[in-house]
Amino acid sequence: MKTIGVFDSGFGGLTVLRELLKLVPDARYVYLGDTARLPYGSKSRETIARYAISSARFLADQGAELLVIACNTATALAIDDIRAALPIPVIGVVEPGTQAALAAAKSGAQGLQRAEVVVLATSATTQSGAYSRSLNAAGLRATEKACPLLVPLVEEGWLEQPAHKAVTLEVLRIYLLEVLEQAPSANILLLGCTHYPLLKPLIETTLQTLRHPMQIIDSAAAAAQTVATTIAPYMRAHEDVRPECFFYATDSIEKFQRLGSIFLNQPLSEVRLVDLGG
Amino acid sequence: MKTIGVFDSGFGGLTVLRELLKLVPDARYVYLGDTARLPYGSKSRETIARYAISSARFLADQGAELLVIACNTATALAIDDIRAALPIPVIGVVEPGTQAALAAAKSGAQGLQRAEVVVLATSATTQSGAYSRSLNAAGLRATEKACPLLVPLVEEGWLEQPAHKAVTLEVLRIYLLEVLEQAPSANILLLGCTHYPLLKPLIETTLQTLRHPMQIIDSAAAAAQTVATTIAPYMRAHEDVRPECFFYATDSIEKFQRLGSIFLNQPLSEVRLVDLGG
Repeated sequence: MKTIGVFDSGFGGLTVLRELLKLVPDARYVYLGDTARLPYGSKSRETIARYAISSARFLADQGAELLVIACNTATALAIDDIRAALPIPVIGVVEPGTQAALAAAKSGAQGLQRAEVVVLATSATTQSGAYSRSLNAAGLRATEKACPLLVPLVEEGWLEQPAHKAVTLEVLRIYLLEVLEQAPSANILLLGCTHYPLLKPLIETTLQTLRHPMQIIDSAAAAAQTVATTIAPYMRAHEDVRPECFFYATDSIEKFQRLGSIFLNQPLSEVRLVDLGG
Repeated sequence: MKTIGVFDSGFGGLTVLRELLKLVPDARYVYLGDTARLPYGSKSRETIARYAISSARFLADQGAELLVIACNTATALAIDDIRAALPIPVIGVVEPGTQAALAAAKSGAQGLQRAEVVVLATSATTQSGAYSRSLNAAGLRATEKACPLLVPLVEEGWLEQPAHKAVTLEVLRIYLLEVLEQAPSANILLLGCTHYPLLKPLIETTLQTLRHPMQIIDSAAAAAQTVATTIAPYMRAHEDVRPECFFYATDSIEKFQRLGSIFLNQPLSEVRLVDLGG
């Protein structure tokens, strides 16, 4: 049974793990949320790289044979540093997201020529320009939009209770209006933050309100698909396997269990506290 | 000239420094924003204490003879730990905020008997119960309300542009309605986070809309007043002095200068990057 390390600054990476558990159940998962130092999305490249490398090394020390950077910010700003620091294969979320957008563009009604992608992400991710570089290299036009209020709204769970949901819908409307002013013919929307899959129903509602339909691509699901493809040759071909999951966090275990179960969409087994310094 | 250390997890403490520059101009100020590890407001007591002590020690090493914890979360959760770790006097924001609320209660039309305080603060501050303990010990009834979305809204500057301001007003309306349901006769509103002074005009608007007037107490201004009183015996009695300010941050200097000037309400002179580990 392969050991797969999954790393995020916090809880968002659990949306990637949720997809992995479906696609690659025959594995042992070690998840680290660097919650004492989150959020990464508002910090500098140097700080993010330093935090991400110490986190990645911890997972390699726990036996990870493959590492998934389930954090768009860490992928966008530090994947080369992480790859250089570790002796195991490292899969991020930007490249799989790009490939999924490319597949959507090719199969879309308007075709590859007219495809135009909007990427919603944190400030640090958009400032890095990693998605634009990756999407442009794949032949796709792209516009990135920093949406720094979405992570706090998701972490506060302002998604269902009517007054709360109305605020989140209004914030989404503002962000989407702003980016569609820059990219009025965009037809693919790439969710470039692992918190955003939880917003998908509200994003769909907002796009309907704006009368601007777009195909929504989730980089969390795309990354899980890439892991499944990468690891397929090593997997055993029997059924009824159950994945093993080990969770580590650098801050409050209670909060990790409470919030994490929302992102993973199932209760979290035991979470252990780990001190990475700082 | 006395050296005063001022510490916050980020930029909010600059609202305390802004008041200090007015009240105690004859001093040398060393300010540290622990921006690589912010926000403290969503983290555990152990983590906050560890971060706050290493930050406080840094300021003592820079020559601080008096330390102001210009951060409600660090004060509420770690002031005893910080005092135990440092050989210099330490002033937090909770006790001055309480004293200002008490003064307001005594001078208010309804008198001390009917005074009832609502405290708006971060999740970690409200969970600590520090304000309730302090206010109750002063003979005041108190209800605390965690408002975790206010810091991100202030940091994004969603205060003026009409669509942005409307979102912030709606979030304030939701938080205030929720707390006034618990404390319907509250007449004093204590701002228990150093980001919140920037929201004061919007809070006043919201209270008018809700037809629930309250006296607003700002713990940042109250803490500066306490420092002025504490330090008065040591001050020279001449005019035309200009304070000296030195700024340190643990993450992006560019962001610190840009956001910090909004909180300080004047441009920041040189900011230096410091590595406290982590």
